[in-house]
Amino acid sequence: MKTKILLKEADMPTHWYNIVADMPNPPAPILAPDGSPVTPDALSAIFPDAIIEQEVSAQRWIPIPDEVREVLRLWRPSPLYRAERLEMALKTPAKIYFKNEAVSPAGSHKPNTAVAQAYYNKLQGIKRLATETGAGQWGCSLALAGQLFDLEVRVYMVKVSYQQKPYRRSMMQTWGAEVFPSPTDITQSGRHILQQDADSPGSLGIAISEAVEEAAGRSDTNYALGSVLNHVLLHQTIIGEEAKKQLELVGEYPDAIYAPCGGGSNFGGIAFPFFADKAAGKEIDLVAVEPTSCPTLTKGVYAYDYGDTEGLTPLTKMYTLGHDFMPPGIHAGGLRYHGDSALVSQLYNEGLLSAVAIPQLETFEAGELFSKTQGIIPAPESCHAIAATVREAKRCAETGEAKTLLFNLSGHGHFDMSSYDRYFKGELEDFDYPDDAIQASLSHLPKVG
Amino acid sequence: MKTKILLKEADMPTHWYNIVADMPNPPAPILAPDGSPVTPDALSAIFPDAIIEQEVSAQRWIPIPDEVREVLRLWRPSPLYRAERLEMALKTPAKIYFKNEAVSPAGSHKPNTAVAQAYYNKLQGIKRLATETGAGQWGCSLALAGQLFDLEVRVYMVKVSYQQKPYRRSMMQTWGAEVFPSPTDITQSGRHILQQDADSPGSLGIAISEAVEEAAGRSDTNYALGSVLNHVLLHQTIIGEEAKKQLELVGEYPDAIYAPCGGGSNFGGIAFPFFADKAAGKEIDLVAVEPTSCPTLTKGVYAYDYGDTEGLTPLTKMYTLGHDFMPPGIHAGGLRYHGDSALVSQLYNEGLLSAVAIPQLETFEAGELFSKTQGIIPAPESCHAIAATVREAKRCAETGEAKTLLFNLSGHGHFDMSSYDRYFKGELEDFDYPDDAIQASLSHLPKVG
Repeated sequence: MKTKILLKEADMPTHWYNIVADMPNPPAPILAPDGSPVTPDALSAIFPDAIIEQEVSAQRWIPIPDEVREVLRLWRPSPLYRAERLEMALKTPAKIYFKNEAVSPAGSHKPNTAVAQAYYNKLQGIKRLATETGAGQWGCSLALAGQLFDLEVRVYMVKVSYQQKPYRRSMMQTWGAEVFPSPTDITQSGRHILQQDADSPGSLGIAISEAVEEAAGRSDTNYALGSVLNHVLLHQTIIGEEAKKQLELVGEYPDAIYAPCGGGSNFGGIAFPFFADKAAGKEIDLVAVEPTSCPTLTKGVYAYDYGDTEGLTPLTKMYTLGHDFMPPGIHAGGLRYHGDSALVSQLYNEGLLSAVAIPQLETFEAGELFSKTQGIIPAPESCHAIAATVREAKRCAETGEAKTLLFNLSGHGHFDMSSYDRYFKGELEDFDYPDDAIQASLSHLPKVG
Repeated sequence: MKTKILLKEADMPTHWYNIVADMPNPPAPILAPDGSPVTPDALSAIFPDAIIEQEVSAQRWIPIPDEVREVLRLWRPSPLYRAERLEMALKTPAKIYFKNEAVSPAGSHKPNTAVAQAYYNKLQGIKRLATETGAGQWGCSLALAGQLFDLEVRVYMVKVSYQQKPYRRSMMQTWGAEVFPSPTDITQSGRHILQQDADSPGSLGIAISEAVEEAAGRSDTNYALGSVLNHVLLHQTIIGEEAKKQLELVGEYPDAIYAPCGGGSNFGGIAFPFFADKAAGKEIDLVAVEPTSCPTLTKGVYAYDYGDTEGLTPLTKMYTLGHDFMPPGIHAGGLRYHGDSALVSQLYNEGLLSAVAIPQLETFEAGELFSKTQGIIPAPESCHAIAATVREAKRCAETGEAKTLLFNLSGHGHFDMSSYDRYFKGELEDFDYPDDAIQASLSHLPKVG
């Protein structure tokens, strides 16, 4: 039995899989705040044409440009692992596989789309990319991609993270990006916030506003987003495509797939390529795993809402806890998002995808078990997928089912050791977010359609 | 052209290469402080039999136990990369390859020997391992290995690092090790130091004394060392063996190999398996790269000296700057060692290996260039190998030589971002250590033989 199932570079997928082609219903349109559909033209102030085309495409297979594959093969195809030691520890008859996206230089799956976005912007003659970052995963990924395509990258990093997480900041700088603690006095949005509160710690919503403002205001500058949008999920499908090929090599097909779900690109990336089979009648459970503290799919509503806190973005129909819902400060920062991908939301609404919410402590317990058996220390986001897999593997141990389980190890935890530290010291809490708070923020949903 | 050259798990080496079999002269004996040779028996208080056998063996190929290979394949064989983007940036006709040892869960080559040492100790019925660590690389590696073989691991971590580098400490704890800030009040050595200076920041020398004392005083506990000794270098030869196979797959043979050299296991690991060819007449340059601030091979003397600062260990004949030489606080902590491997030293003394010393800033410049071209952010130790390779590649660009160069990317820099930060801020210094200081410490060499 092999521990790692490797693909040759030549076997790296040549096309991304566009799930829209296999959805029973077309995606709900994106709306302007007045309720009229947003046209592709309106997006061209901040996105290149190829990205806008992908955002609205219904073509099943979209070619991955050679220039993108050239960069991706710095770390791709990523290895698929059989987690034998974890299986043994759980005494489960289930077979557990995981895709290791932590092998990218930035340490997560995020560069898969950062590289594609940088490439299309470069192609369009764009010189600079502006983006926001919270803990720094996405900022690092775009910094890396910008460096490899010779684009200037400017990252608005939430000020409190900028101060508390200097290592991700240094990483972005190593790849040549400029990093600003947001709110800044560079943008109007930033100055506006600073006038109200000179000591504002910043938020992802504010940082988005600053990055979008910069991109919209300069013809040489575009904006790049790390999750949620259709084209981002598209670029991540290379994960699931590879996993499928790798499982075929060992004669396996998963009964269930687990991935963390914040904005949806992690989950969509590994799960979507298996959706075509499911649409064709294959039994497979595609499970989005979210924190109980930010239970978008499991406790939110399916409605039109803003993508950002401030209400500056167009409206998408999605599961949401309300755009001004403020999740508690859990350690899986990548999963603290009030909304979700429109594609994931629609398919979940139609009963074609599953979701489960898991408390923070259980995710760290799973992460600890995984570290102790398989060696790799997972990112707190990835711990969610592991925890859901462990639950199912334990259930299999009781029933004797020899299911095949697959999860996405979306990133390593090298920059999250302070969270593990707090976990070991018993300082981490579980947050079952009160339904009242969710109901309150849901009462602020925009009135549309 | 492939970016990564991968070996199948089945092609992972089955034997370690013991360079002693190909050395023109037998290794100089290890001596007790009174000048008499140390017998294997004397070592059995702290090392298991199999390790002691390996320490003195002259057998060319030593089998890697299946149990060790089972663990190593969690990340091995490690990939060999062609650094095309670095070549392009340097406009060099040289071909640059690197072996990526950063893929281990602990992030460096160190687990290669940690796993073997844990296994042999487990086999001997040992329950606990004690060791020291400075910045934490070795402590992490032994913690991981101990976890996988169900051994208790107790790490004496230099107190100043314990306080300043909490993330490596958390990583050790994640793998179940107990970590103590050294000097402690658990051991006599520690208490003795604390009596003299209650606020002692600790040193590697003190931490070694504490770990050895614990191992020597308890029959269930042994000691494990992360470099310098023959068996450690032996376990690391899997790196060079794999690299050789991988280069063969693409029809290449290196003209020169570069690796960082502190205690010697990094360098020995990648270079020794090519030594047999050199001994048989093949032209190949095996280059140990050290910091100008701790220039053991390039400015030290070849003499009997202690392995630790306190003078508690047996004496080995090696290049040394004097056991009480205190190198400045450079950021490649793994290269701050006054001595060197006896095997590396003897072969260097016989003119069969080369060495070069490189200033700190040049190593970080090389690390930055490597990060920007290949994506991976290297550990400061690895930056030394990159810098030496870059020097040679630039020379090739001038002469037009299409040499094949190989270096060991021994680890990633995820836990060294504060050093990069200081480098970007212009706060890093070069230390050309004054010859007087070296002469002073060399005057304290023990009088032997």
